[in-house]
Amino acid sequence: MQHLTTPGPTVGVVGGGQLGRMLAEAASPLGVELIVLDPTPNCPASSVAENQIVADFDDPDAIMELGKKVDVLTFEIELASPDLLEKVHNEIGVPVHPDPDTLRMIQDKYVQKQRLADADIPVPTFTEVTSQGDLETALDELGSVMVKAKEGGYDGRGNVPVESLEEIESALSVVDQGAMAEEFLDFKRELSVIGIKGADESRAFPVGENIHRDEILRETVVPARAPENVLEEARSVALDVLELMDGRGVFGIELFQTTDDAILVNEIAPRPHNSGHWTIEGAVSSQFEQHIRAVLGWPLASTAQRCPTAMLNLLGDVDKNVPAKLAGVETLLDSPGVSLHWYGKREARPLRKLGHITLTADGSDLDEVNQLLSRGKELRDQTTFIE
Amino acid sequence: MQHLTTPGPTVGVVGGGQLGRMLAEAASPLGVELIVLDPTPNCPASSVAENQIVADFDDPDAIMELGKKVDVLTFEIELASPDLLEKVHNEIGVPVHPDPDTLRMIQDKYVQKQRLADADIPVPTFTEVTSQGDLETALDELGSVMVKAKEGGYDGRGNVPVESLEEIESALSVVDQGAMAEEFLDFKRELSVIGIKGADESRAFPVGENIHRDEILRETVVPARAPENVLEEARSVALDVLELMDGRGVFGIELFQTTDDAILVNEIAPRPHNSGHWTIEGAVSSQFEQHIRAVLGWPLASTAQRCPTAMLNLLGDVDKNVPAKLAGVETLLDSPGVSLHWYGKREARPLRKLGHITLTADGSDLDEVNQLLSRGKELRDQTTFIE
Repeated sequence: MQHLTTPGPTVGVVGGGQLGRMLAEAASPLGVELIVLDPTPNCPASSVAENQIVADFDDPDAIMELGKKVDVLTFEIELASPDLLEKVHNEIGVPVHPDPDTLRMIQDKYVQKQRLADADIPVPTFTEVTSQGDLETALDELGSVMVKAKEGGYDGRGNVPVESLEEIESALSVVDQGAMAEEFLDFKRELSVIGIKGADESRAFPVGENIHRDEILRETVVPARAPENVLEEARSVALDVLELMDGRGVFGIELFQTTDDAILVNEIAPRPHNSGHWTIEGAVSSQFEQHIRAVLGWPLASTAQRCPTAMLNLLGDVDKNVPAKLAGVETLLDSPGVSLHWYGKREARPLRKLGHITLTADGSDLDEVNQLLSRGKELRDQTTFIE
Repeated sequence: MQHLTTPGPTVGVVGGGQLGRMLAEAASPLGVELIVLDPTPNCPASSVAENQIVADFDDPDAIMELGKKVDVLTFEIELASPDLLEKVHNEIGVPVHPDPDTLRMIQDKYVQKQRLADADIPVPTFTEVTSQGDLETALDELGSVMVKAKEGGYDGRGNVPVESLEEIESALSVVDQGAMAEEFLDFKRELSVIGIKGADESRAFPVGENIHRDEILRETVVPARAPENVLEEARSVALDVLELMDGRGVFGIELFQTTDDAILVNEIAPRPHNSGHWTIEGAVSSQFEQHIRAVLGWPLASTAQRCPTAMLNLLGDVDKNVPAKLAGVETLLDSPGVSLHWYGKREARPLRKLGHITLTADGSDLDEVNQLLSRGKELRDQTTFIE
């Protein structure tokens, strides 16, 4: 690495949402500055970043302008354009991490899964579906399936469960865009591993357990409430996945623990991940600090867990868009070991991620994460978005 | 407290050095924005604060401008002007915390000590010295003394040790400005307590042990390596000191543990304090988060310690002013449980505070802080400021 200097290195980030904001919070102690590119003026990251370029994620001039101002380019959203990032890299030589090729591969869920399967990484059975006929065949072979748009889906958008021929209709618009069908898994729990690819090594944080509802992450607890051998397998699979990724940075690797305790890879995010927010208080270093270190080629930090931790999202429990105003937080702020993260979004929208809380405890047994989780839910239930 | 909103409340800070920077880092997760006032363009806090007003600390128009833009005014340097803060409060009603009266009292070391003594808080024997005759009398009565300028001294500046009549000469320029003489204490160790005055309660972090050289803080270890009853007394004295402070906020309370294990108050800082930097990694909440919560009137956070912690300052070990460029940090960044804080100062100056590192450990015995301290020193010794 280079010497520490002032000004320090500058990291350019495509996307300036909560992930960008938490990246900026982690960059500051290291003397690293962030410039974010985001179409929303006053995006969440803007108040802690050195600067914001207000432009669309796929604005070629803006990406070039960003590239010229920074020492390394990265992204905090999958919507970033691998072609544009590659072009800027080729034209002015600024490093881009993770590699745009890896972003491209991940953006197409079918290609992503095929890549994993080709490398003998365990995944649910899946098949490409580009027509009604494909889907009928898939249903016949796999029983119930989850139809997933190849591109553009997140937080469950673009996913349609199909249990029988009668339900095919609901999935056809997704199939028309290009889709894959995946066996509908009966799993015990969802796990995830936050992995980091550094300049010459890979590391992984302890395995988290994720609780989704309506396909949106609601809570993560760490340690996951699964047997040691399952966690060991999850970690091992995640490290195998990291081997396939090119370039440096943090990856969120979502996994299923099946009813017979096998580990299958669900999907990969080439960036810090909601299920890794617990690391800010719960681990020796955070996923955000690790991402900054990794993209700069600095040594990675320790991934050791400090304490049992529960992270709970504060989602917009509203039925229409209203200014972001959360009531009932006094008790939450008054509770020992509860940390608030409020993302600075101006508008609450239905199920939008507006913040999260993290609860930490002493000790290390599984009962503690149960207690943290129920205490966290009680605190969260006392809050409401008001007009 | 109010509801959480976006934009959230804005805190105006007189001073934008490393304390302002760490305040901004702590404010962001809470959705709180900072505007700092500092004469140095690109001051350390500017890259994470929402905004900087570039002006002298005693510029009346700039303080008024700051006051108009924020929900509460505070300061991170004792050089802030209590008169101007009071004036802005009186004219436009913006709350100022801590109270300007408390800042005024603390700015005059003699008045500060007199206030403590009047409240029966244990302090070293001291007396006002405004003439050579006063100083001769003080020497006669107290033996060796430390002469301290009443105002403007920090990091040992303005302090002159006088052991005998022959040495009086060296202290006369300080005496002429207005000074006090304090008995020269033979103490076992220096301790400090970071206390917080909230809206309706006071809290204190665990007692830290401070290692000074040339009157500049070099290291803090927590827990302090002193017997339990001494720590209990230190905590109790600190809470008594907090009782005398008006307004809300964090206070750094420096203490001596004498050879017969008495606790005496050395001095008070009405702001986050270098000896409290360990709280960022070593406690459940940091002194910076506590200060933000306190000045806003929000509930205070837990002050519980998470783990044994050592904090080591990175001081400019240079003999002239050079651009800030620190070599040899790779090993430091590669060491598990070592956190870097680099303040973003452009110039290294002799003994200037340019950053700090914090080492944390598992477990809780005193041997561990010894190990952390020696490991930290080894890492720090491998770094050098280069041209």
